[in-house]
Amino acid sequence: MGRITARRPVTRIVVGGGVRSRPDLLAVEEPLEIRVGGAQLALTMRTPGNDVELAAGFLVSEGVISRGEQFRQAMHCGGPGAGGEANTYNILDVTLAPGVAAPAPELTRRFPTTSSCGLCGKAGVDAIQMSSPHRLADDHSAVDAELLTSFPDRLRARQAVFEKTGGLHAAALFDAGTGELLVLREDVGRHNAVDKVIGWAVLADRLPLRATVLQVSGRASFELAQKAVMAGIPVLAAVSAPSSLAAELADTAGLTLVGFLRGDSMNVYTHPHRIRTAAPAGSRRAEGALR
Amino acid sequence: MGRITARRPVTRIVVGGGVRSRPDLLAVEEPLEIRVGGAQLALTMRTPGNDVELAAGFLVSEGVISRGEQFRQAMHCGGPGAGGEANTYNILDVTLAPGVAAPAPELTRRFPTTSSCGLCGKAGVDAIQMSSPHRLADDHSAVDAELLTSFPDRLRARQAVFEKTGGLHAAALFDAGTGELLVLREDVGRHNAVDKVIGWAVLADRLPLRATVLQVSGRASFELAQKAVMAGIPVLAAVSAPSSLAAELADTAGLTLVGFLRGDSMNVYTHPHRIRTAAPAGSRRAEGALR
Repeated sequence: MGRITARRPVTRIVVGGGVRSRPDLLAVEEPLEIRVGGAQLALTMRTPGNDVELAAGFLVSEGVISRGEQFRQAMHCGGPGAGGEANTYNILDVTLAPGVAAPAPELTRRFPTTSSCGLCGKAGVDAIQMSSPHRLADDHSAVDAELLTSFPDRLRARQAVFEKTGGLHAAALFDAGTGELLVLREDVGRHNAVDKVIGWAVLADRLPLRATVLQVSGRASFELAQKAVMAGIPVLAAVSAPSSLAAELADTAGLTLVGFLRGDSMNVYTHPHRIRTAAPAGSRRAEGALR
Repeated sequence: MGRITARRPVTRIVVGGGVRSRPDLLAVEEPLEIRVGGAQLALTMRTPGNDVELAAGFLVSEGVISRGEQFRQAMHCGGPGAGGEANTYNILDVTLAPGVAAPAPELTRRFPTTSSCGLCGKAGVDAIQMSSPHRLADDHSAVDAELLTSFPDRLRARQAVFEKTGGLHAAALFDAGTGELLVLREDVGRHNAVDKVIGWAVLADRLPLRATVLQVSGRASFELAQKAVMAGIPVLAAVSAPSSLAAELADTAGLTLVGFLRGDSMNVYTHPHRIRTAAPAGSRRAEGALR
């Protein structure tokens, strides 16, 4: 397995304070080519480690699998190259169970054929939104607001590699009822960190992830919201801002989207019924623009 | 042109302090399909605005164009759909000048054929690294360290949309000699913000961008380093950490890579000769691990 951190010399400059050479630790970023049955499917820049989970989670996000038994095995290939170099562990070939339809190649997946506008087609939300096998409206779980505010600090406390490099995103899955941290993954790509979490879950056959919260270290994009929906996760909580499209998708799909989860406060953009507060209903009132 | 911010209702929860409904501003994220001569090339999630620059910069990053005259025109298409909806401005079709080779479709670009490992191929840095038309080793410019430390604050001060939404990355180009801010762009995707900056430059026929600094608001990935190299930018400065692969590429390509540019200090990972300091050479000495 590849390294997660790499040591490099760095020139440290403090204006007015001199110039010094020191070693520094960087988060490793390397390409991973995901293949299914030998056919190229996707190329992602990722932090090595948990590659099988990454591939499995990616296949969940793409709607290819939703149960562990559909993922038969995965093997790093590549071996020593013609030039005699070591295995780079940068190609992973997945074997699906018999009867599971192989995914379309990337070009087809990214440009679904639509006919809404004869000549030009339409690259809209409709065209990029995946259909999930899980109905979030059926998930009646809720999480206590005060418990939820503890998740970002607990995420950060477990981010071992971030502490050393400052260069990794993290995603973690918490039990909505007990607050137990079920799994945490780090990666240079935020979407990879989420795929690794979801891949861990599908390989343990825990999908749909009812009554859980997916906590991410940064912002909430459309892509992350879509991954949560595809895995049946009812609550996505981000430390920073969501995008407009993440909120639109969450609204439609029944996903509770929380942003700016910092200190003892948060913004709930969609489906706030899953956030339990002690405040009486009478305290709800309209106010001026937020922030 | 599409909106840059969108207003949405949000439920603001402060633990122990009640629940309130307010409107909030979110950064808009929408898909953009880039076509060349009618053929689908790429699909990116972006903040609407400066779409022509985004497409032009993307084509520079992909090695398709390097001069303004090679980019003849670009038109939003899509028009009203069959359902009568308004133009979504989410498809942009680029016409290249005669004689400019059309880019390979995405699948081919992302999986270049290599033969280094008979059966499996090799998804390594060699396979994903683009060849730049510009030699950074020929750029003998330098930037004053103290001047460089002013760039992050000046970037933040000009981030109009970030102030309102907290949801956008920014990239800006500064003159290495005078410190003049030449252009700044914001986007939900950090790579898009950089493509918009580079697109602005190629359309003004300013490539290679000698004696400039590309300042970004977040981390420095391989992808951002590659975009800088393709545009002939000699210095890439990030507020946060670089990845290992960004540093490796910068080392090889002759790019000066600066990270953790905060307050009056910075880490220079590669080619520090372009950072001018007042410190005497004798102050350089090896020290223990950084951070």
